[in-house]
Amino acid sequence: MDLIHTGAEMRAWSRAARARGERVGFVPTMGYLHEGHLSLCRVAHEHADRVVVSIFVNPTQFAPAEDLSRYPRDEEGDLAKCRAEGVAAVFLPPVEEMYPPGSQTFVTVEELTRGLCGENRPTHFRGVATVVSLLFHLVEPDVAVFGEKDYQQLKVIQRLVRDQAFPVTIVPGPLVREPDGVAMSSRNAYLTEEERRQATVLSRSLFWARDEVAAGRAVDPALAAEVRARIEQAPLAEVDYVSLVDDDDLTPLTEATSRPARIAVAVRFGRTRLLDNVQMVPMGS
Amino acid sequence: MDLIHTGAEMRAWSRAARARGERVGFVPTMGYLHEGHLSLCRVAHEHADRVVVSIFVNPTQFAPAEDLSRYPRDEEGDLAKCRAEGVAAVFLPPVEEMYPPGSQTFVTVEELTRGLCGENRPTHFRGVATVVSLLFHLVEPDVAVFGEKDYQQLKVIQRLVRDQAFPVTIVPGPLVREPDGVAMSSRNAYLTEEERRQATVLSRSLFWARDEVAAGRAVDPALAAEVRARIEQAPLAEVDYVSLVDDDDLTPLTEATSRPARIAVAVRFGRTRLLDNVQMVPMGS
Repeated sequence: MDLIHTGAEMRAWSRAARARGERVGFVPTMGYLHEGHLSLCRVAHEHADRVVVSIFVNPTQFAPAEDLSRYPRDEEGDLAKCRAEGVAAVFLPPVEEMYPPGSQTFVTVEELTRGLCGENRPTHFRGVATVVSLLFHLVEPDVAVFGEKDYQQLKVIQRLVRDQAFPVTIVPGPLVREPDGVAMSSRNAYLTEEERRQATVLSRSLFWARDEVAAGRAVDPALAAEVRARIEQAPLAEVDYVSLVDDDDLTPLTEATSRPARIAVAVRFGRTRLLDNVQMVPMGS
Repeated sequence: MDLIHTGAEMRAWSRAARARGERVGFVPTMGYLHEGHLSLCRVAHEHADRVVVSIFVNPTQFAPAEDLSRYPRDEEGDLAKCRAEGVAAVFLPPVEEMYPPGSQTFVTVEELTRGLCGENRPTHFRGVATVVSLLFHLVEPDVAVFGEKDYQQLKVIQRLVRDQAFPVTIVPGPLVREPDGVAMSSRNAYLTEEERRQATVLSRSLFWARDEVAAGRAVDPALAAEVRARIEQAPLAEVDYVSLVDDDDLTPLTEATSRPARIAVAVRFGRTRLLDNVQMVPMGS
């Protein structure tokens, strides 16, 4: 497994692979890898001959008051996991390599980033789109995999790729859960034992809604309101949002829909903000 | 000469050229080509085996009140000129090909676009950076040529390429002037005979300053103030700005400098806004 620290080496590596007729798959991460990330590597292997994982805790997607400095890191553990997954190269650029002094270019995706996480984290997706665009220029992948856990992020990247005509195919990776249903996230490491126990309310509430719909219930805002009420029964849960949105363009749904929709939630437990979401497919849709 | 209308064809053309071992040079334009554009094609030929010219009047770089709808067009004349210059392909995408419905992604370069033209045209460079980034993804050139007439634009593109690590070399093309000194511009076509005559004040004033500096005068804000006063002697000239800036990062200079600087001007004659600029190299710099 090759460890690569500069953009120039990364591009040369990728071009050499493609010159040999190999397809390059890419999984961008912020490290502290868990089974969710590794599942994305497996998806990448299904679409590519060589898989590159980047590990870069991207400062531009954190607001000043957010958890950049305490974001969990475990480079040695990450590399061992990548090796075990058959990853061909890990790209670990230092911050100065990605954002040298004087850097001032940003990529924004507008409508899609206004609601949900964009509302309370107004510069977050600008940072994500900027770093993903930069990483695509350096890694030059044929295929890149983004997890459905960060569903809004996936949609933003798909839009970015379409609008800016990146020659990259985006493949979604299904959300991976712990045995108790909690969506896998590096930030789960922050949770106390009690917070972790109560965090199961997210998936339980979302699965309840999904099962209701599967049993014939309408997909409408009342459903999201009930999900919210269920989550709020957990004493440590502070709801940031519980939103019913169109599954494709993320517009908030204010009445019943017959099209695929999604309930997306962001909920704080102590200082830790967790995301989860589930697709709702109305009967006959 | 190949005429190409879709992004997919454009990319295929460029990749086929590179697969033959040819370097692709690129000159993005808004059409209505003049000797200035053609000089950029010649610069491109010095750095590439095959030259692509794009002709696309980019709506995102015009503000609502600006001259998008009346921007001059002459496709037939443009194609004849490209043919005569040995251009290998002209890329003429329709607007819907570049910005399909739902497009919402923008690229911004921040500090460099605050002053000069960015001050009165706040979304102009966002449109330029967005379309150039998109064009680079479609044309995938090895080299792209941008004229020094739009000096701030050149700097913005150089910054964009560095910050976002585009695998493209940017080559500046020297400003080309009419015999009477007026900088070549498609917008010169808007000028009345009298406006056109008075427009020579721009280059005359800038050349005066350059010659003063060559003769040993200091490069300081008083010099720009004198250029401004000279320009204002033309009754039809309405100064938008006359700025002394650092030649590299465009920061406004508020005292004498020993480094290369530039005086950049934007001046309206009637409804037509003209740009010009000249480099000032202090003695011993």
